[in-house]
Amino acid sequence: MDSVVLIADLAHAARTAARSLSTATGSQRKAALEAIATALIERSNEILAANELDMASARSENMHPQMQDRLLLTTSRVEGMADGARQVAALEDPLGRTLKESTLPNGLHLRQISVPFGVIGMVYEARPNVTVDAAVILLMSGNAALLRGSSTARHSNEVLVKVMKDALATTGISPEVIQLVPSDDRSTVKALLTARGKVDLVIPRGSAQLIRMVVDEATVPTIETGAGVCHVFVDEFADINKALPILLNSKTHRPSVCNAAETLLVHKAIAPTFLPLALKALHDAGVVIHGDSTAQKVAEKFGVPSTLATEENWCTEYGILEMNVAVVDSVDAAADHIAKYGTNHTEAIVTENQGSADRFIALADCAAVMVNASTRFTDGEQMGFGAEIGISNQKLHARGPMGLEAMTTATWIVTGNGQIRS
Amino acid sequence: MDSVVLIADLAHAARTAARSLSTATGSQRKAALEAIATALIERSNEILAANELDMASARSENMHPQMQDRLLLTTSRVEGMADGARQVAALEDPLGRTLKESTLPNGLHLRQISVPFGVIGMVYEARPNVTVDAAVILLMSGNAALLRGSSTARHSNEVLVKVMKDALATTGISPEVIQLVPSDDRSTVKALLTARGKVDLVIPRGSAQLIRMVVDEATVPTIETGAGVCHVFVDEFADINKALPILLNSKTHRPSVCNAAETLLVHKAIAPTFLPLALKALHDAGVVIHGDSTAQKVAEKFGVPSTLATEENWCTEYGILEMNVAVVDSVDAAADHIAKYGTNHTEAIVTENQGSADRFIALADCAAVMVNASTRFTDGEQMGFGAEIGISNQKLHARGPMGLEAMTTATWIVTGNGQIRS
Repeated sequence: MDSVVLIADLAHAARTAARSLSTATGSQRKAALEAIATALIERSNEILAANELDMASARSENMHPQMQDRLLLTTSRVEGMADGARQVAALEDPLGRTLKESTLPNGLHLRQISVPFGVIGMVYEARPNVTVDAAVILLMSGNAALLRGSSTARHSNEVLVKVMKDALATTGISPEVIQLVPSDDRSTVKALLTARGKVDLVIPRGSAQLIRMVVDEATVPTIETGAGVCHVFVDEFADINKALPILLNSKTHRPSVCNAAETLLVHKAIAPTFLPLALKALHDAGVVIHGDSTAQKVAEKFGVPSTLATEENWCTEYGILEMNVAVVDSVDAAADHIAKYGTNHTEAIVTENQGSADRFIALADCAAVMVNASTRFTDGEQMGFGAEIGISNQKLHARGPMGLEAMTTATWIVTGNGQIRS
Repeated sequence: MDSVVLIADLAHAARTAARSLSTATGSQRKAALEAIATALIERSNEILAANELDMASARSENMHPQMQDRLLLTTSRVEGMADGARQVAALEDPLGRTLKESTLPNGLHLRQISVPFGVIGMVYEARPNVTVDAAVILLMSGNAALLRGSSTARHSNEVLVKVMKDALATTGISPEVIQLVPSDDRSTVKALLTARGKVDLVIPRGSAQLIRMVVDEATVPTIETGAGVCHVFVDEFADINKALPILLNSKTHRPSVCNAAETLLVHKAIAPTFLPLALKALHDAGVVIHGDSTAQKVAEKFGVPSTLATEENWCTEYGILEMNVAVVDSVDAAADHIAKYGTNHTEAIVTENQGSADRFIALADCAAVMVNASTRFTDGEQMGFGAEIGISNQKLHARGPMGLEAMTTATWIVTGNGQIRS
């Protein structure tokens, strides 16, 4: 079938079914998620058997071991998905919240409430757990889900969607609120991204390449999730006893994720004391250093190997134990560097001076500013959201970690007793 | 100059200058708007002279009289722009509002505050007053403005931007926060729409054709403003004394605007009493009727001319005194019709029954639901926003009338005393 027609059909079925969500109570949506969690556990053998088909293909195609690990489901990973569904079910209902309320002089009562988007598309890569993680967040926030995973996870995704749909069939929620978009052909992605008016929002999760493709091709509104070139700025008024652990944690705790730091900026006034300690500590932790000329000189003096950082270095999200180091003249100069090379994700300042912190906050232009804390805290779970569908790297609608609330929009309910405009 | 390079340069200048806004206090931004208002009045002769150049071209090119009227500036219209700037200056500061706040078990203090987007592009058509109206809303919300108006308003826009920049030069705000994008060539629009990473948001204001072009071509996030195919549903439990004025006001008060109603839906149980009254009243008000077969029969019986409504009729935003009329079986059937033909803008229900209202609200999927009030109330000024940059017809970020708050995004400020992740 033509992909455009296919997506239109799936979206129509999803939107019709979504009424069973938008008219369901919070308790009914919670019960649906509990049913999904139970079914995942009960049918884990079936899920693992389907996953083994995907794994066999992956092995025969010599898929990269790291990618194979992402594709793999185990008993504990299935339990993890079920736990995730239960955790989302336990969160506060994001729908029907009163966002604003007022009464106008003409007697009209205005109330803005949170409501579902309607139909949300997810485009993602190898990990089959995203199929469940995304579906339960979308369902709890009242949205139907169009799930377009990777063809490499096809059998896993098919059985996961079947298990979830079967579970919904035992509840008051229509199983059609979850639709698996066929992954055998790239044309279904293109059709999903251009189904404007039929799909309310598309969220990509995966590589920079995937996200760039979504941004370039979509006419449906999208939320860009993605790259983090995060900086740690050690101000002249920094407490070195805080700065050093924050630096090391930001870079080395989990270098592969988007909230890991890639660049250290050091105020020139504190560089003579802090830089030797920082460079040695990074080196001892196995971090390869790319420095500006000042940092290189200090590194050389203290026997730490380094290369001269290039324009490309400053822009790179390493994902591994490499780090850029520069000395800057001021808070504003740090902000200039960040404006030039950052990705508006997370920027940290270490300082005991509130004026420096305030100036940094005003200039940093990012989803989260960390003042005396590790960049690694930009995370839905860490920030107490309870669940995260991704970290928004754009400024429209949601910025930073997105939980249930980010998957809702708003409606104005204007109640009168016959008011007309004169 | 190449348009891509030109836009990159303008956006860079705007972003650099925007720091003078993001670090300014609310009072400083208000003072800047007051200075603009004063300058507009003081230099109105200069403004009117420039506008006369555009008007002369328009006349020599036989521009449609309605378009000429949109292009025309008069002393009172210039005063209107100045008043608008003063009104925006008097509104509550949209920046620095605390949106969320909490303290985590690890002692981290989280505060989400409203901050500017940074650089916002406006793409609009003939009316030169948009140049000022948009600029003052963007400035008050801390954003630099890239203004791309119509080439037909070129001289007017140039002088308006010059007057605003000169006024800013007397304040602490950099004049470079306002950039006029040359309008002699369509390539500047395309370059603006694809300046991803350089421009944070583009808002189109104008014809359906303009908005469609923006949606199709943009890789920068956009907010769709636009079409309103609004419905008035008269429920079986409606008070006819409210329904009739609401219907007439919704259709005839100002048929050319997006919150005017295009279709009347009448519950079958009230149709025998309400429909004859409604059809006669609409006809008396000069409204041409396009009915479904039931409505047509009633119209014929009472001597009201009508045509059989086509698929195209149900989808059309008339903008003039024409209206579709259908009889439906239930609230759900009304919602089905709206889901098929509506544009998610404004839907009204007239009912004395709370259950009907609640069901309609749950199913209507629109920016604003009017319960016993005219559709014409979906309007920033009417709703007490004080200013409006447009009415969002999409669900991402802002829905319905957009005031100052809609032109802000958010940043998380996470304050610790050395916390790291373990």
